[in-house]
Amino acid sequence: MLFDFVRSPCALLDGLVGSTAYDAVLDAYQAWWEGEGCAVSDAVDRARTPWVRMFDTAGKRVDEILYPPEYWGMLKRGYCSGVLWRAFKDQSLLPSFLLIYLTSFYDCGLSCPYTVSLSTALPLSKYADAGLKKRFLPSLLRDDDTVWQGATWMTEIKGGSDLGANVETEAVPSGSTWRLTGDKYFASNAGAELAVVAARPRGAPTGVRGLALFLLPRRRQGGELNYSIRRLKDKTGTRSVPTGEIELRDSEAYLLGAAHEGIYIILEVLNISRVANGLGSVALAQRAIADAMSFAERRVAFGRPIGEHPLLREQFEERVRNLRAAFALAWEAGQLLNEVWQQRRPYSDRYHLFRLVAHLAKYWTAEFAVQTAKWCIEVHGGLGVLEEFRVERWLREAMVLAIWEGTAHRQLLDALEVIERKQAHHALIQYLDGTPGVADLRQLVQTIDAHLKLQAGERERTWEPLANRLAQATAEALVRRLPNH
Amino acid sequence: MLFDFVRSPCALLDGLVGSTAYDAVLDAYQAWWEGEGCAVSDAVDRARTPWVRMFDTAGKRVDEILYPPEYWGMLKRGYCSGVLWRAFKDQSLLPSFLLIYLTSFYDCGLSCPYTVSLSTALPLSKYADAGLKKRFLPSLLRDDDTVWQGATWMTEIKGGSDLGANVETEAVPSGSTWRLTGDKYFASNAGAELAVVAARPRGAPTGVRGLALFLLPRRRQGGELNYSIRRLKDKTGTRSVPTGEIELRDSEAYLLGAAHEGIYIILEVLNISRVANGLGSVALAQRAIADAMSFAERRVAFGRPIGEHPLLREQFEERVRNLRAAFALAWEAGQLLNEVWQQRRPYSDRYHLFRLVAHLAKYWTAEFAVQTAKWCIEVHGGLGVLEEFRVERWLREAMVLAIWEGTAHRQLLDALEVIERKQAHHALIQYLDGTPGVADLRQLVQTIDAHLKLQAGERERTWEPLANRLAQATAEALVRRLPNH
Amino acid sequence: MLFDFVRSPCALLDGLVGSTAYDAVLDAYQAWWEGEGCAVSDAVDRARTPWVRMFDTAGKRVDEILYPPEYWGMLKRGYCSGVLWRAFKDQSLLPSFLLIYLTSFYDCGLSCPYTVSLSTALPLSKYADAGLKKRFLPSLLRDDDTVWQGATWMTEIKGGSDLGANVETEAVPSGSTWRLTGDKYFASNAGAELAVVAARPRGAPTGVRGLALFLLPRRRQGGELNYSIRRLKDKTGTRSVPTGEIELRDSEAYLLGAAHEGIYIILEVLNISRVANGLGSVALAQRAIADAMSFAERRVAFGRPIGEHPLLREQFEERVRNLRAAFALAWEAGQLLNEVWQQRRPYSDRYHLFRLVAHLAKYWTAEFAVQTAKWCIEVHGGLGVLEEFRVERWLREAMVLAIWEGTAHRQLLDALEVIERKQAHHALIQYLDGTPGVADLRQLVQTIDAHLKLQAGERERTWEPLANRLAQATAEALVRRLPNH
Amino acid sequence: MLFDFVRSPCALLDGLVGSTAYDAVLDAYQAWWEGEGCAVSDAVDRARTPWVRMFDTAGKRVDEILYPPEYWGMLKRGYCSGVLWRAFKDQSLLPSFLLIYLTSFYDCGLSCPYTVSLSTALPLSKYADAGLKKRFLPSLLRDDDTVWQGATWMTEIKGGSDLGANVETEAVPSGSTWRLTGDKYFASNAGAELAVVAARPRGAPTGVRGLALFLLPRRRQGGELNYSIRRLKDKTGTRSVPTGEIELRDSEAYLLGAAHEGIYIILEVLNISRVANGLGSVALAQRAIADAMSFAERRVAFGRPIGEHPLLREQFEERVRNLRAAFALAWEAGQLLNEVWQQRRPYSDRYHLFRLVAHLAKYWTAEFAVQTAKWCIEVHGGLGVLEEFRVERWLREAMVLAIWEGTAHRQLLDALEVIERKQAHHALIQYLDGTPGVADLRQLVQTIDAHLKLQAGERERTWEPLANRLAQATAEALVRRLPNH
Repeated sequence: MLFDFVRSPCALLDGLVGSTAYDAVLDAYQAWWEGEGCAVSDAVDRARTPWVRMFDTAGKRVDEILYPPEYWGMLKRGYCSGVLWRAFKDQSLLPSFLLIYLTSFYDCGLSCPYTVSLSTALPLSKYADAGLKKRFLPSLLRDDDTVWQGATWMTEIKGGSDLGANVETEAVPSGSTWRLTGDKYFASNAGAELAVVAARPRGAPTGVRGLALFLLPRRRQGGELNYSIRRLKDKTGTRSVPTGEIELRDSEAYLLGAAHEGIYIILEVLNISRVANGLGSVALAQRAIADAMSFAERRVAFGRPIGEHPLLREQFEERVRNLRAAFALAWEAGQLLNEVWQQRRPYSDRYHLFRLVAHLAKYWTAEFAVQTAKWCIEVHGGLGVLEEFRVERWLREAMVLAIWEGTAHRQLLDALEVIERKQAHHALIQYLDGTPGVADLRQLVQTIDAHLKLQAGERERTWEPLANRLAQATAEALVRRLPNH
Repeated sequence: MLFDFVRSPCALLDGLVGSTAYDAVLDAYQAWWEGEGCAVSDAVDRARTPWVRMFDTAGKRVDEILYPPEYWGMLKRGYCSGVLWRAFKDQSLLPSFLLIYLTSFYDCGLSCPYTVSLSTALPLSKYADAGLKKRFLPSLLRDDDTVWQGATWMTEIKGGSDLGANVETEAVPSGSTWRLTGDKYFASNAGAELAVVAARPRGAPTGVRGLALFLLPRRRQGGELNYSIRRLKDKTGTRSVPTGEIELRDSEAYLLGAAHEGIYIILEVLNISRVANGLGSVALAQRAIADAMSFAERRVAFGRPIGEHPLLREQFEERVRNLRAAFALAWEAGQLLNEVWQQRRPYSDRYHLFRLVAHLAKYWTAEFAVQTAKWCIEVHGGLGVLEEFRVERWLREAMVLAIWEGTAHRQLLDALEVIERKQAHHALIQYLDGTPGVADLRQLVQTIDAHLKLQAGERERTWEPLANRLAQATAEALVRRLPNH
Repeated sequence: MLFDFVRSPCALLDGLVGSTAYDAVLDAYQAWWEGEGCAVSDAVDRARTPWVRMFDTAGKRVDEILYPPEYWGMLKRGYCSGVLWRAFKDQSLLPSFLLIYLTSFYDCGLSCPYTVSLSTALPLSKYADAGLKKRFLPSLLRDDDTVWQGATWMTEIKGGSDLGANVETEAVPSGSTWRLTGDKYFASNAGAELAVVAARPRGAPTGVRGLALFLLPRRRQGGELNYSIRRLKDKTGTRSVPTGEIELRDSEAYLLGAAHEGIYIILEVLNISRVANGLGSVALAQRAIADAMSFAERRVAFGRPIGEHPLLREQFEERVRNLRAAFALAWEAGQLLNEVWQQRRPYSDRYHLFRLVAHLAKYWTAEFAVQTAKWCIEVHGGLGVLEEFRVERWLREAMVLAIWEGTAHRQLLDALEVIERKQAHHALIQYLDGTPGVADLRQLVQTIDAHLKLQAGERERTWEPLANRLAQATAEALVRRLPNH
Repeated sequence: MLFDFVRSPCALLDGLVGSTAYDAVLDAYQAWWEGEGCAVSDAVDRARTPWVRMFDTAGKRVDEILYPPEYWGMLKRGYCSGVLWRAFKDQSLLPSFLLIYLTSFYDCGLSCPYTVSLSTALPLSKYADAGLKKRFLPSLLRDDDTVWQGATWMTEIKGGSDLGANVETEAVPSGSTWRLTGDKYFASNAGAELAVVAARPRGAPTGVRGLALFLLPRRRQGGELNYSIRRLKDKTGTRSVPTGEIELRDSEAYLLGAAHEGIYIILEVLNISRVANGLGSVALAQRAIADAMSFAERRVAFGRPIGEHPLLREQFEERVRNLRAAFALAWEAGQLLNEVWQQRRPYSDRYHLFRLVAHLAKYWTAEFAVQTAKWCIEVHGGLGVLEEFRVERWLREAMVLAIWEGTAHRQLLDALEVIERKQAHHALIQYLDGTPGVADLRQLVQTIDAHLKLQAGERERTWEPLANRLAQATAEALVRRLPNH
């Protein structure tokens, strides 16, 4: 087919972004996946949720996650390749984003540990005092198998959208540290050596304003476990990251930044994972198209490969077109974050522009990933729904991408908010000024301005189609700004 | 919410179709599902693919499918309620369709055994000679637990779309019977006492014209197994029907109808399953909306149930609107089939109209089911992708509905063909004449007429959006003709 | 074969015990198992550990055990047949023992819920004050599906043999009730509506003297869950009883009997389960022999059924001989318990005699069950280790029987203790006076008297062969006293 | 404890056999297992039976076994270490036996591929013509990851004991090769590149005399699959070797040796696997004792580690004693085989002596392995039956060892036969002449001579206890001849 670049994430990056300082790293990483990693990833997915060995035979609580040994090899590969340490060495998120894109093409669940480790390292480096930073940061930035992992634990049993109402974990000061007690219900990368945890200091106000962010190590100063894994969740997808329920009981923790600014720091943490989610979604969609392509080239019906049938051919072309657009949108979110990630309150307009683009990207690329994975199954016909052929896996993964870090509903409303409060849509127009095709976008912004005059409930109710158009138009404009467009 | 009728398939049927002679049967059947069946269905899905005990301890091949006992209870319930025997007693497919709708609301995979049993009984009753009919039909029409099941086995390893090229099973005459040898790759309801099987008589022409349809019992006249189950497929969904790979080796079989008309009889068989698939898709979508509704009423965010948030509320309304339309379309396919199912070649125009509506319905309702199931997961947020809560099940099921009986791609092209060859779109307009809103449809038909003038490849390549509009417009017109609109 | 009675537990009971008032009940129960129960039991075993739904979608902790519906039907069958209520109605444990024997022939894990329910009802009826008894006992004694279940939770993480050291659950008085806090590590019949729980009242002495027994309902007076199921254990066998880890956190409980007599009441509770375990072991061994017999009659080698080969035939005969002896021993333990179960401290000599016989029976029959199950697998050859044929199941079950209620090691030492302290071996001789063959036993008792003069460590070290001989000789003497010997 | 050597297979070998030329190889191999292999083996066991991908997405039959990648790494490690190539390079089975012992300590199922590869290479090297040998043998003897594997497929559906009656696979000559058609029911190492297969040439006599042995490659000369894997068996243990059902359909094969001597060659093949089974059983028992020891040192009851309790301590001592004896017996079988493996018919007396010792060893060590594994579980108490702790695994493995290569029943009768026909028990006495303690054995031989005078049925019926004593006495005599006794 014409779309050969779709088969390889390095080829797509090269085609759309062009050469970077990391080409050799990426090539080696991709070669490892093609040679060994894919088979390991398949085996991990096939094995379903790993067991947790909660106690050892001596009756000591150990909470050991029994992934097969090769899982750990696969996991460490990305850290060693520099998904974390390069960001700090080069003071740029670019290598992280590139490696996360590649990882996600092969195993988008595995990108989660990398992302949450980054989301732990960043506030630690930005908001912790020197002692804490010195004590913990280097372990996260190792380039060998002894590297520590991070984790981000916000959501509790009542749901993750409304953190202000639903975080009930309480933090109590204890000397220079804090003690946290509560249960985290969707705890990504359970078992990590460090986590950043949302909690409410005793006496703090209700709502989001009362939340603070804490750094919580896996082991207490005395070496005992500092948190318990109540269980791992049986997720349908992204089995390469252990998602658990975590029990905190007087767990030692360290405040990051000022308690009253906690919610802003939490949102900064989420910025990273939303951007990573966007890139991962695009990579997953690329993978689904690539797999569909391989199949369509080999499966014959009515005398020729099905990929040559006009209707299916048209479907491929449309999806490759959208792949470019989706990539452009997700990539721009990453570029903008790379500009603003060191900012603190009060944030610049560029920060708000980033937020708008990030929400649109998270929303739109996840939807694209789901629809593309679903279509990939259909291309495979009956084989698509057989576990044996693994094609159905991409849809299971994509559904998780569409939900964690905030569902479409959440992204839509957050995008609306930053438009209402910060006029971020105007910043967008300004930012894209001069890009071919921005005229359409300009018209759309006027429509949005009119929409903002609606009464609140109505404004929200009818927002979805407009937001969809905004995401699409932005993506299409951004495609034209890609280096190798 | 306003959509209370969505919670119950009987309520929806009552609301849209009105009262029928089967209300008491349906009420009792729904009550059984609510009281017992749902839990059984959940357990069967949770248990994944059942084992096949291939040999007994004496070394005799037995190919026994080890579903839990309660599965068989659940399965027989539908037969006893009349999903098969009522159709023959009342000479109407209506009770079958009603019961399949209900079944599919609770377990759409279970509708498959019913559908393929119906698809076995119909050609047997229509095309078999009196002796064969007398010998086998009554067993299929029993109203107790000794009822036999049917099955329809067409697809082979190279794919199911292009049967003409891919059916390699050979039939050789042997006295008054035939012997079949070949492998069926997607054999629904493996283990059934009877199957209708596509095969090519030795010496018959290549392509679809050389196919014939045979009746094949599970046991030979001497009592031995007449086919082998090579294995059951590990499907992601519809685990309530055992789909297997079947080996035929000199298997005893009986020709149904004339050999040279085989392909038409095969298509008649598929008519039934496509209609059933459409009804099942709508029922599944109803279920997904119902589950989302229950959740949205209970989950609170930002101080009120999420179902009251304007954006989500809007999404509910849109889906309920589409549910009505999808039902109308699927139901119409069933009504038309009920008119034409006794026809033989040469078929009437009404038959071709049926085919058009059936293809549109199969295509459009399956897409609706998938999108609704996907949305239902998103409404549940993180809980949606946990196996524990079963919400993710509906998407696994829906993906199967979108594929078996022909993918969207197949339905689109078949619809195009019946339009091209039989001008079925004009029959549609005529059929809907007088329905409010048919004007839009009329305009669309003109567009299609223009489209038909395109060169073949181009016609196919750009057909999808037109077909989509045709399905939607037809559905919306049909809503207005529903008894209780 | 000659051993036809081995095929049916009713036949064995009839042959060895003779007719009882419960023949019709037992016949009906056996018929149900043969007709339906066996297939359900197989399916439950095949499904492995059931899931626990820990939270509902509203985020409320529910700890619902997701057995398939048919499990509950199977479970309730025994209660309805009278495994509990008959004991209280007839003031005799006989019907319980008979029904447990039958149950264990088909599913020895299922006997556990019955046994622990009995072990809950007995101390409740014996030691609770009138109000408590009135409030809770009737629910346990219902004869319909609404019956409550009991459970016995003693063991904690450090092990079950040395309860005195290892029970760390603390009980604190709270008005007229108590509050318990601690973790139970092997909690049989997790999910039961009532449990009897070993705990240490705050301030009580260390060691076994400080233990007390409490009644603990599943729900608090206000309706909330009173305990949490941390998880179910993945046991290799006896999957028909959910064994869990239980968390007690200020759980409401009621003291049974005097706190300072707790350990005696706990031992009375264990008396019941040890006797039941003995009967269950014999029934399991009978089942293994029966299955081996069916196979040996059908499998042919060297021209005849393998059951007719002299060496295998000899193995059958020996095992059937041992089956009778093992039954006699287990049955006698039951008879003696039926005499003494209403006793309170200070206990009679008959009580101590019971304890000796019960320890010997628990030890010896479990060993017999394991060895017979292992041999049954060997008789089946390669088929024996295939999960498909379920033969390997009996060994998995037997291994559990050999361990819970105290391993062989524990039984041996407890038997030694009751011999040392209470001279129970002399009571045994006296009890069996006049039985043919008691002379051998008399001589053995003299050897034991000599053994008791050894230094303590040496006495324990060399006790096993003597105990083994004592169990065997007792069993063989008891065979001759069976009603239908 | 005193038994430190039990913890390490190298230490045991060093203690009992002394230093060999392979010490460094063994040390490195053991180090790999301790460092990496154990965790891989656990994961493979935990993952249960691997999937077979029967067809690829293009519909081509591929029969690919989906072990996780790390399985293949573990498997190849033994081949690279020299479990095969060293035997041919050094013309000695010693390195194979040593490596198989080590392997079995860690994963006795994995020894099966090694053993059957050896059992393929030996007849190939001994009986194939030069061309065949040159074509296939080098692939089996590679020392890198490209090494081929062998397999031995004898047993069919009616059972493996009576091959003469039950092998129905037919061989038909076809030019210089043969075509085999039939089904193998327990096919160890399914998927191997080469297999030796028992079949009956068309026209050959019934019974064992009509059997011949064939070499059968996985792929035909043209590259297509030469056999099909119908399915893998769900075994309870030894999951590190894929055991399958194999379909041969006109499969290309090569006769090994003369057709009329086939049964002798088949028995030579079994010689190897019986000896390997004996060594594997001892290694497994050692592992079970080692694990029990670790636990008994850590678990405390009544104030001290349970390993210090006199009764348990006594049990340890007895088992370590038996471990030495069992090793001596299994090792002797290996030494004798190393003497006779190059012999052809007519065999020497030494060959018959070997057969006697091999049967006794297979029988007695497997029983020891089962009993020790069972006891190891009991030592662990409740933890022993939890899948989480893997202790139960040894019993599952041991049960397979007791069955494949012939059950106890088979070994007993074969030992009796070689005594009857070849007076092998007298050869044994002669062989052990001068060994301390041989007097007891001499007396036993006289008892056996008397036993031989019994009528045939009676001789067989009462043979087991005698054979048991013979095995034990032989083992105890052999202990005294161990190099480092």
